[in-house]
Amino acid sequence: LRSGYPETIFSQGKTVEQVVGIARRLLEKNVNIMATRADRNVYEALQAIGESVEYHAAARIAVINRQPVPPTRTTILVMCAGTSDIPVAEEAAVTAEVMGNRVERLADVGVAGIHRLLAKRKIIQSASVLVVVAGMDGALPSVTAGLTDKPVIAVPTSIGYGASFGGLAALLTMLNSCANGVTVVNIDNGYGAGYAASLINRMADRAAGTSQNPPL
Amino acid sequence: LRSGYPETIFSQGKTVEQVVGIARRLLEKNVNIMATRADRNVYEALQAIGESVEYHAAARIAVINRQPVPPTRTTILVMCAGTSDIPVAEEAAVTAEVMGNRVERLADVGVAGIHRLLAKRKIIQSASVLVVVAGMDGALPSVTAGLTDKPVIAVPTSIGYGASFGGLAALLTMLNSCANGVTVVNIDNGYGAGYAASLINRMADRAAGTSQNPPL
Amino acid sequence: LRSGYPETIFSQGKTVEQVVGIARRLLEKNVNIMATRADRNVYEALQAIGESVEYHAAARIAVINRQPVPPTRTTILVMCAGTSDIPVAEEAAVTAEVMGNRVERLADVGVAGIHRLLAKRKIIQSASVLVVVAGMDGALPSVTAGLTDKPVIAVPTSIGYGASFGGLAALLTMLNSCANGVTVVNIDNGYGAGYAASLINRMADRAAGTSQNPPL
Amino acid sequence: LRSGYPETIFSQGKTVEQVVGIARRLLEKNVNIMATRADRNVYEALQAIGESVEYHAAARIAVINRQPVPPTRTTILVMCAGTSDIPVAEEAAVTAEVMGNRVERLADVGVAGIHRLLAKRKIIQSASVLVVVAGMDGALPSVTAGLTDKPVIAVPTSIGYGASFGGLAALLTMLNSCANGVTVVNIDNGYGAGYAASLINRMADRAAGTSQNPPL
Amino acid sequence: LRSGYPETIFSQGKTVEQVVGIARRLLEKNVNIMATRADRNVYEALQAIGESVEYHAAARIAVINRQPVPPTRTTILVMCAGTSDIPVAEEAAVTAEVMGNRVERLADVGVAGIHRLLAKRKIIQSASVLVVVAGMDGALPSVTAGLTDKPVIAVPTSIGYGASFGGLAALLTMLNSCANGVTVVNIDNGYGAGYAASLINRMADRAAGTSQNPPL
Amino acid sequence: LRSGYPETIFSQGKTVEQVVGIARRLLEKNVNIMATRADRNVYEALQAIGESVEYHAAARIAVINRQPVPPTRTTILVMCAGTSDIPVAEEAAVTAEVMGNRVERLADVGVAGIHRLLAKRKIIQSASVLVVVAGMDGALPSVTAGLTDKPVIAVPTSIGYGASFGGLAALLTMLNSCANGVTVVNIDNGYGAGYAASLINRMADRAAGTSQNPPL
Amino acid sequence: LRSGYPETIFSQGKTVEQVVGIARRLLEKNVNIMATRADRNVYEALQAIGESVEYHAAARIAVINRQPVPPTRTTILVMCAGTSDIPVAEEAAVTAEVMGNRVERLADVGVAGIHRLLAKRKIIQSASVLVVVAGMDGALPSVTAGLTDKPVIAVPTSIGYGASFGGLAALLTMLNSCANGVTVVNIDNGYGAGYAASLINRMADRAAGTSQNPPL
Amino acid sequence: LRSGYPETIFSQGKTVEQVVGIARRLLEKNVNIMATRADRNVYEALQAIGESVEYHAAARIAVINRQPVPPTRTTILVMCAGTSDIPVAEEAAVTAEVMGNRVERLADVGVAGIHRLLAKRKIIQSASVLVVVAGMDGALPSVTAGLTDKPVIAVPTSIGYGASFGGLAALLTMLNSCANGVTVVNIDNGYGAGYAASLINRMADRAAGTSQNPPL
Ligand SMILES: Nc1ncnc2c1ncn2[C@@H]1O[C@H](COP(=O)(O)O)[C@@H](O)[C@H]1O
Ligand SMILES: Nc1ncnc2c1ncn2[C@@H]1O[C@H](COP(=O)(O)O)[C@@H](O)[C@H]1O
Ligand SMILES: Nc1ncnc2c1ncn2[C@@H]1O[C@H](COP(=O)(O)O)[C@@H](O)[C@H]1O
Ligand SMILES: Nc1ncnc2c1ncn2[C@@H]1O[C@H](COP(=O)(O)O)[C@@H](O)[C@H]1O
Ligand SMILES: [Mg+2]
Ligand SMILES: [Mg+2]
Ligand SMILES: [Mg+2]
Ligand SMILES: [Mg+2]
Ligand SMILES: [Mg+2]
Ligand SMILES: [Mg+2]
Ligand SMILES: [Mg+2]
Ligand SMILES: [Mg+2]
Repeated sequence: LRSGYPETIFSQGKTVEQVVGIARRLLEKNVNIMATRADRNVYEALQAIGESVEYHAAARIAVINRQPVPPTRTTILVMCAGTSDIPVAEEAAVTAEVMGNRVERLADVGVAGIHRLLAKRKIIQSASVLVVVAGMDGALPSVTAGLTDKPVIAVPTSIGYGASFGGLAALLTMLNSCANGVTVVNIDNGYGAGYAASLINRMADRAAGTSQNPPL
Repeated sequence: LRSGYPETIFSQGKTVEQVVGIARRLLEKNVNIMATRADRNVYEALQAIGESVEYHAAARIAVINRQPVPPTRTTILVMCAGTSDIPVAEEAAVTAEVMGNRVERLADVGVAGIHRLLAKRKIIQSASVLVVVAGMDGALPSVTAGLTDKPVIAVPTSIGYGASFGGLAALLTMLNSCANGVTVVNIDNGYGAGYAASLINRMADRAAGTSQNPPL
Repeated sequence: LRSGYPETIFSQGKTVEQVVGIARRLLEKNVNIMATRADRNVYEALQAIGESVEYHAAARIAVINRQPVPPTRTTILVMCAGTSDIPVAEEAAVTAEVMGNRVERLADVGVAGIHRLLAKRKIIQSASVLVVVAGMDGALPSVTAGLTDKPVIAVPTSIGYGASFGGLAALLTMLNSCANGVTVVNIDNGYGAGYAASLINRMADRAAGTSQNPPL
Repeated sequence: LRSGYPETIFSQGKTVEQVVGIARRLLEKNVNIMATRADRNVYEALQAIGESVEYHAAARIAVINRQPVPPTRTTILVMCAGTSDIPVAEEAAVTAEVMGNRVERLADVGVAGIHRLLAKRKIIQSASVLVVVAGMDGALPSVTAGLTDKPVIAVPTSIGYGASFGGLAALLTMLNSCANGVTVVNIDNGYGAGYAASLINRMADRAAGTSQNPPL
Repeated sequence: LRSGYPETIFSQGKTVEQVVGIARRLLEKNVNIMATRADRNVYEALQAIGESVEYHAAARIAVINRQPVPPTRTTILVMCAGTSDIPVAEEAAVTAEVMGNRVERLADVGVAGIHRLLAKRKIIQSASVLVVVAGMDGALPSVTAGLTDKPVIAVPTSIGYGASFGGLAALLTMLNSCANGVTVVNIDNGYGAGYAASLINRMADRAAGTSQNPPL
Repeated sequence: LRSGYPETIFSQGKTVEQVVGIARRLLEKNVNIMATRADRNVYEALQAIGESVEYHAAARIAVINRQPVPPTRTTILVMCAGTSDIPVAEEAAVTAEVMGNRVERLADVGVAGIHRLLAKRKIIQSASVLVVVAGMDGALPSVTAGLTDKPVIAVPTSIGYGASFGGLAALLTMLNSCANGVTVVNIDNGYGAGYAASLINRMADRAAGTSQNPPL
Repeated sequence: LRSGYPETIFSQGKTVEQVVGIARRLLEKNVNIMATRADRNVYEALQAIGESVEYHAAARIAVINRQPVPPTRTTILVMCAGTSDIPVAEEAAVTAEVMGNRVERLADVGVAGIHRLLAKRKIIQSASVLVVVAGMDGALPSVTAGLTDKPVIAVPTSIGYGASFGGLAALLTMLNSCANGVTVVNIDNGYGAGYAASLINRMADRAAGTSQNPPL
Repeated sequence: LRSGYPETIFSQGKTVEQVVGIARRLLEKNVNIMATRADRNVYEALQAIGESVEYHAAARIAVINRQPVPPTRTTILVMCAGTSDIPVAEEAAVTAEVMGNRVERLADVGVAGIHRLLAKRKIIQSASVLVVVAGMDGALPSVTAGLTDKPVIAVPTSIGYGASFGGLAALLTMLNSCANGVTVVNIDNGYGAGYAASLINRMADRAAGTSQNPPL
């Protein structure tokens, strides 16, 4: 169904052997592969089966790219509120890149320093779709969505303590966002946000008449 | 920012007078207006100020359309699992229509009768973006997203009893969906889903080269 | 302990007779009285005992002011995100006024329209202490606190639906605020916020050397 | 009461010494024994008392089978949605086998790939009772129950992250299932599901007139 | 799929017109119909379309029985802890009866009066499957399951106050039951319990060689 | 206030040094001391300051008994449902003993095996006050309180998994108990139960005219 | 089992007819009867069957006292924090009185006015057992238990708003009380507290050698 | 915005390298720096870059003070209920000191020993603003606020077990406080409380006419 897109292996809760086994089966179909939530052991085990593997440490993603995908001209912007949210933001950004998207990144633009955020208005408004990652109070997607008329995918993170309740506070904030165009994914689900953003950015790329992607 | 789009008044928790007051101020700018969560009193009060108002009873939306918007050729599909989810589905569908989208509707296709759902595969696969509405177990978006490679916006509803906890069960199901391309909005938030779907379908329409919409 | 301050009767959950009874006993001490959560029946019953009563309908507060308190020169700013939050904001504002404070009001400045908020920066920065009221995503206090170096008292409201869970979402957002100087009170507790703000503004007034208040 | 059935020791939260002590006492009655949630230490300690012990590592069950039980002809089907749910599914399957049931297994048939599931319709419809194990969105039992007219015992697992809240999301989904014939056990309770399925399959076996089991 | 079984309409959240419309469509197929959560209005509206309708007021179920089903010889026992649980117990009992089962009822046998319960041991042990309904502490299924080797379907009810949290307490108790053979359905879901019990009792009836039911 | 009673040090969350420091200060007053939640390090450190210390390993309580207290003749019965609940039960039992009470113990009498429990009716009915400890479904106090007319103090434990939610399920069961005379303490709070039982048993002892205790 | 004690009918969730029916059956045994959660209709229906009924409106308890019970000399003190807690406090107090206890009452002694509470130290210290009722922050039992060495039964009430979550806040406060001798009952469960206090006060009365009660 | 105030680095969830990197960038602006939630590694790494660093081990705060701030004459009182709350109290106290405030400390004054608390009334009443830290039942702020007419900032801690639910119980208690002038921060958020107290105490200092602080 998803021609041109990589097959994904969700490594969390699987043994290295299980991941490698699934990868071998998929490689027989000659597809691109992306292993998410992959630690260094997974990366090395995939290399050991003789494949050329790229490892994105911050995103914890290992990629086997047999057929390179030309990137879109339109852009996905991946933003995050704080330094500690970067791993989740990177999971989103790398997922989108592996799926053939041009990605911009913006970190450490919390809403308590609104001027730092407003100074980035141009880059915010030039993106076709935005992934906005935040823990603690989770307020960044609301403010950001007010600055653009493009879809915003909000990703709550488990960063925080006390009444953040493992990301629940940020999740609820985002679901209750008063701004138009915001949708939400699971806590820490950078992958899901990157994937959905990718589906949308493809449309934007073709709408812009600049698409180099093969048709879905 | 959102030229061509209607201004929305969220009527819930406001007096009829407040809604009318806001509407008057907006009408001075000659924009289209959509009042959501509007009961019949709001509708009649808006008529009383001499405007031509359309009332969508099931969706509880009153519309003042000063400048008609030509619809997209590409389609948003709004599906729901049960009869009782229809009001939320209608809120999404009417919102999308008012924003200039062609909308298809599909009701009563719960996952416990998978063949009724599969029989609709064609209409599912011809949509550019899907809004999938479900209460109780909230499982419909997962199955549907597996049948299409387009973005799916999942809307949990407060329909149910007991351990549905006012829609919490459906919300959690959707956030934990194992299918790619699913994002989620607040419980009963048909409006938010319709709005986000509209942002995406515009791109699809232009990508298809069929757009009659004015540029955003 | 709190000389110069009114005695408060929390009317919710009390019969009109109970409220009047408590008021009579307090009036013997010749103090000012403020009945919060008071509907029109309470107001009329207090008038009926021959007192001159002021009724603040939006705030649901009835006041018997035997000894007028000269207001501070320094200001408490009471802001709220949406129209539906006004009753809670008014409870805070009227409480503060009855306690002898100059109060400014700012309504309908949600974070999704950040420019409307920024346009009010001057009034925000001239207040000595701020009460910031918001339901749904509860993000306003975080942004506001970033615009001032004065204490911000955040009041979550029960306004919203679905995953707002009766104000829980806004409460958690505020407790997790990343901005400095924010403290929080109970959901819908305009009274508590107005009272605490009043304690602080008194200090500001004396610090400014402008105080007309009797010493605490 | 449960003649023919093994005695079960729930090892979790007990010391190896406690488990061995209980086993010794039970063996005096010459019954079959099954230790659940048993790690390798328990297994080895049971061997050390001179018994012939079978260890099912994936299920974490150690079995001492003094009196072999002839299996039923009718079948219990144990299905699971993902690779990571296998330990819980195995706990159910091995429990049922030790209790004298023929068991079929089906893994990795999530609802997002509905065709993989539908391809298994025959095996689904030939079972007398089904144990359906799923984490994350927990949607598999709803869909499966729609494909059979036999009882379905749903087992939520703690597999997932973020808003899966340790299996709560899957549990709620299953309790809210819109499909007929679904009942639910505790999160990760493969044992309980296997036991209840066994009670039902016995009836099916006798109904089919094929039973080799001694009467209960 | 479910030949011989009635079609069910869940009336809650539907208008009388919607229920009647669905009933008309089903009657064209000449099947038996059961409308659950049906108040007297639904009952009368169904009569008004010229059908012979039976109304079970306590169970809130209206039945149109075009083809009578001969009852099983084996028995489903429906028990409940308190008087206030009777409506839910009746929903289970009537559902099972409409589906062609012999049903026994036992009310007001709470665990705090264990001797009243033990006095009923015979009737408990002669049932092929048990539906055990309880609110508040929800402890009855645990004790009952200890008195029988047949499957027990536990139904938590929303009866109670305070920390019963609308049936959550009873639900959790039942999910954590230490007794073998217990499975659980949603809070107040008498229908689901009656249905699942019916699937099991059919097997028992055929196992007993006494079945008069047509094959499934 | 509590003459004759030991001073208690709650060791959890304190360093060994802090516990020893507090003990030294208390010993100057020549009182008996009980350190709860004390691991072996605490025990040894207390010995090292030259005191004669008794260590109750299962209860994790270390006792320095300078003035022995003669035990009551009336009895506190400490019961628990499962083997894994013993540490909490022991915390209650040892606390009561240190406070000068005669204590009986009864373990492994879960409600799913009601006859094992009923066989102990005599010992249950001869106690003056009962401490009933249970995890998982927490049903034991309800049944027990039905067998006696003496006060029952229920202690939920964190034993269990899945929907036991760290003892929450058992806590709610106990708070919702339908039996008369049941009160509840915090999850795992054996100490609190033992203490409260002790206050009550003292009265029973004096009521029985057998008291050897010094007056409170 | 409970000779001398009244039989209780919990009227909530029962029809007037059901309550009267149960009362009739009990009166045949010539026992005293107490109907709790009884509104005026229940009271009048009981009178109508020709019995002499006492109605305690604030407590919502109707009593048929065929055999008067002489009161204890020792005292149960029933305290509450605020005016709105009185109905729950009265349920406890009247229950205790009907069961033959001398009861003292103390209202409106919240912890925020500690001196009003301390002024009552004498009455607090002269009680044999205390029932302490509080909503909102639920802090009163902790402070009170520190002022007495007698058992304290804490009753959380559903009084409050916002983050009181229907009494959950007060319940948790009480379960976490740092004071010795505190046990807790369900939210709003005045009856349960009065009953348990009564069991304890009987012992105190006999211990004091003053008992006029018949033996249990 | 916050001239004279230190810049804060929240070290939790950051690598030592990230903290040092941020510190270096800030030091270029020649400001004071405070790293909170800093373990010894962070402290040593900061020293290693050639700065003179003060480490407050109990508070887990490392300070680089380039420009010493003269302390206020007015006082912030930081109180805590138990020994285990000291780390959070120290975080508040050190934060306030680094920001140029005179700070008093009061530990181990739980509400169950009200006289120990009342003995400190003088120190309580001489503070300009109070930070009150408590875990478990969280009742201390309510009582304390009743003893002063100054603002009280309540800090719930995660200290406790069972139904303390990681500080949730204390948080809810504080939000529901019946005392005037109480506001609340996140669980364990000593920093936030110290910061907000500092903003208020500055005003008090200037009001007292004793301020040595530079103007904000
Ligand atoms: N980080 C992630 N979080 C959630 N879902 C993921 C993630 N990475 C991959 N997935 C999903 O997991 C699927 C593969 O799961 P599995 O078959 O268990 O390896 C992919 O197709 C994705 O839908
Ligand atoms: N709207 C309010 N919300 C919360 N607390 C309030 C409110 N109004 C008054 N109070 C508090 O309630 C106290 C009076 O309570 P009462 O004695 O029940 O009338 C006042 O001193 C305040 O502390
Ligand atoms: N994996 C499991 N999960 C839940 N309950 C279990 C499990 N295994 C055994 N049990 C139950 O635990 C009982 C034995 O518990 P125990 O007496 O503590 O060894 C068995 O009779 C079963 O009812
Ligand atoms: N196991 C326990 N659980 C709860 N509270 C306890 C426990 N052991 C002692 N305590 C309480 O903790 C107090 C001593 O606390 P601390 O001053 O922190 O040592 C005692 O007076 C008891 O009230
Ligand atoms: Mg926008
Ligand atoms: Mg898809
Ligand atoms: Mg600020
Ligand atoms: Mg089925
Ligand atoms: Mg059984
Ligand atoms: Mg009893
Ligand atoms: Mg005490
Ligand atoms: Mg005060």
